[in-house]
Amino acid sequence: MTKADIVVLGGSAAGITAAITARRHHPDKSILLIRKETKVPIPCGIPYIYGTLTDADKNLIPDAILETNKVDLRVGEATKIDRAGRAVLLGDDRIEYERLILATGSVPTQPPIPGVDMEGVYIILKDVDYLRQLQRKLQDASNVVIIGCGFIGIEFADEINKIKGKNVTILEVAPNCLKLSYDDEFCEEMETHLRGRGITVYTSTAVEQIAGEGRVREVRLNDGTVIPADLVILGIGAKANVALAKEAELRLGLTGGVAVDRTMQTSDPNIFACGDCAEKISFFGGGPSPLKLASIAQLEARIAGANVFGLRRESDGTLGVWSTAVGDLAMGTAGLTESMAKDFGYDVVSGTVETPNRHPGCMPGAAPVKVKLVFERHSRTLLGGQVRGSVSVGELINTIAACVQKRMTAEDIAMFQMGTHPALTASPIAYPLVNAAEVAITRLR
Amino acid sequence: MTKADIVVLGGSAAGITAAITARRHHPDKSILLIRKETKVPIPCGIPYIYGTLTDADKNLIPDAILETNKVDLRVGEATKIDRAGRAVLLGDDRIEYERLILATGSVPTQPPIPGVDMEGVYIILKDVDYLRQLQRKLQDASNVVIIGCGFIGIEFADEINKIKGKNVTILEVAPNCLKLSYDDEFCEEMETHLRGRGITVYTSTAVEQIAGEGRVREVRLNDGTVIPADLVILGIGAKANVALAKEAELRLGLTGGVAVDRTMQTSDPNIFACGDCAEKISFFGGGPSPLKLASIAQLEARIAGANVFGLRRESDGTLGVWSTAVGDLAMGTAGLTESMAKDFGYDVVSGTVETPNRHPGCMPGAAPVKVKLVFERHSRTLLGGQVRGSVSVGELINTIAACVQKRMTAEDIAMFQMGTHPALTASPIAYPLVNAAEVAITRLR
Repeated sequence: MTKADIVVLGGSAAGITAAITARRHHPDKSILLIRKETKVPIPCGIPYIYGTLTDADKNLIPDAILETNKVDLRVGEATKIDRAGRAVLLGDDRIEYERLILATGSVPTQPPIPGVDMEGVYIILKDVDYLRQLQRKLQDASNVVIIGCGFIGIEFADEINKIKGKNVTILEVAPNCLKLSYDDEFCEEMETHLRGRGITVYTSTAVEQIAGEGRVREVRLNDGTVIPADLVILGIGAKANVALAKEAELRLGLTGGVAVDRTMQTSDPNIFACGDCAEKISFFGGGPSPLKLASIAQLEARIAGANVFGLRRESDGTLGVWSTAVGDLAMGTAGLTESMAKDFGYDVVSGTVETPNRHPGCMPGAAPVKVKLVFERHSRTLLGGQVRGSVSVGELINTIAACVQKRMTAEDIAMFQMGTHPALTASPIAYPLVNAAEVAITRLR
Repeated sequence: MTKADIVVLGGSAAGITAAITARRHHPDKSILLIRKETKVPIPCGIPYIYGTLTDADKNLIPDAILETNKVDLRVGEATKIDRAGRAVLLGDDRIEYERLILATGSVPTQPPIPGVDMEGVYIILKDVDYLRQLQRKLQDASNVVIIGCGFIGIEFADEINKIKGKNVTILEVAPNCLKLSYDDEFCEEMETHLRGRGITVYTSTAVEQIAGEGRVREVRLNDGTVIPADLVILGIGAKANVALAKEAELRLGLTGGVAVDRTMQTSDPNIFACGDCAEKISFFGGGPSPLKLASIAQLEARIAGANVFGLRRESDGTLGVWSTAVGDLAMGTAGLTESMAKDFGYDVVSGTVETPNRHPGCMPGAAPVKVKLVFERHSRTLLGGQVRGSVSVGELINTIAACVQKRMTAEDIAMFQMGTHPALTASPIAYPLVNAAEVAITRLR
């Protein structure tokens, strides 16, 4: 029998940050993190194992971060949560807690397609051995088909396409790739870009069957097209991993995650949940949010970790900020796209500008950067923004995220005080964030 | 005699943006921009003419931006403002206005050093012919000495150092280069970096004399050191260009700029001022601010341009956001450095973290990024931040700028919802903005 003041279940992005945050806020408590993996892959880095890093061991979250923060580690699979006894069971082993933080993540969705369980069909498991096995199998595959054009799908497609001698095809049931993440005009740019890199992209296409004898040989589409396939990867999405929570009769939410309030407390006051396993509400309106991102997990883990022995932090709801990179094309979204905002029921006005990301535009490294901002018409509040450009897009979208989080208006952004530099940013006159707001203001009159 | 509803005096960053903003807000008004330069250099791009762009004509603000916005252009030197008659005089020519926007910029400070008016000593004038002449003279110079280690000084030093066969020395009276822009630890990194690139850096050094016969031959320091010099560049700073405003008896401010209120209105309600020529108040406390930056000029120009026929916008005061790049080392500041904050009288707590700017840290392009945040102890409000890293620093500092502008607290930033991506940013677990706030929070207890 072991005992710890704080037990964290799950060792990926949410679990680690929850443990570190608990340590920061509770320097005298004992903290134990339980995870089933010997090694933990960096979740967002998984696609990059295949073309860029070439070794799964280069994509690990180092355990040193636990040691530095005096978080004990136990590798093993939790089999049960005994709420009445305040204990987590690992088979016959029993670990007692004062407070438990669930960070059990998500499991990939397996679509109801005939043939998905055939040999040669892979889902994306956050498991180093499995990922390494996929890498070995890729060596012998010429024709690789990826089902699902979300982040994971296109990043896998592009990485595998970097390996010599692979024909890569991606399939998307929606009219555009990344449809759930960007407005159409951004999606279309990414599609053109992917095609330009030699990847075959099918959109508005449903998979009828994954076929073969014993192992996959082809993918059959609903329009009769047959695509030869030695290996198929499913990048469809993921659902909250709530098996233990459900068995322990913790309340679940509408999207299937462990129900939590704004303090990340579950229906059991001694148990908190964060990350992909936790139910989320949207920053916009407070309804359920289906988003699952490592960055969202961070926010929730920082809240859960701080709150375990007395409430200190509350979530404003899930904003949703992400970026995507394929080669030198990077895109990002913070908050709502125009199409999402309309689906939510907002009356919106947008402003879009494009300008070189250096000044003058002939400075080395210059590339066009496009910014689209979406405002609610009546209050003029920023609901979201999208950016397309090169590497700095990763931080520019975070500037927009800050503006959304503080509910800045178009006027606030028109008067945004930014810094600019010839070698680093667009010119002050053309700075795209500010100018997109000015364009929207013109349309708001 | 000409007449325009809105006359803008000055054609650099402030004047152009004031004119464009006036056009956006007043589609039916006639707008005339008067400037003395045939061609307008991009102010922040001037150093880059010498090593990177190699041609002053590559560093111009295109006039197309005026045409697109239906702003008429008159090239000529204004000689007088006739406030009673609401007219600007260009010698015998008279241009009447309904509203006048002054955007006359600044002139370089000439320090009281013996020999500054000698041949071979240059100031940084925003004048293409002068800048081109400097370029020609540089061809014959082996030993180049730059006096003043502010942005302009170090950027000139590094650019000239890129030209084959130049010995470049920079001199700074303060104990560190960039002392007015960054805390010491950042300044020291830049100094080491400059030295590593072959530039000789003297700090805590006053120039006693610029010496030579007719043209410069050497620079003599107060400690007796003599530095051979074929060419000297003064990068000491700039003062508001208020000659016409002063003659027209507009009220001036404490730092010597044209006095304006928060709407950028001068003491004459028909005259607005913006940019380097306008007096500034600080975002912090509201006292006079000596800062002069193209990005500040933008804010003021967007206010002045919107307000000419009825007040629509007000400034919260000058925040001060800038970035600097020398080779692949970039640094940025938003708001107050720790040292500035202490000078202002704030009781501060800071948090600093350093992490790779990609995840995993072996992703291509990975480099360390350092973030320092400075909070006011009692209110826990963010007063400012500094960043050191590579190109994305230019936008990361703007994320911090947004946090300062909305007076976010350490807790707000600990719960910041950012996006992350392996190829674009630090890992979600280590995201430096959030972690610097967490470090500061630990110290705030």
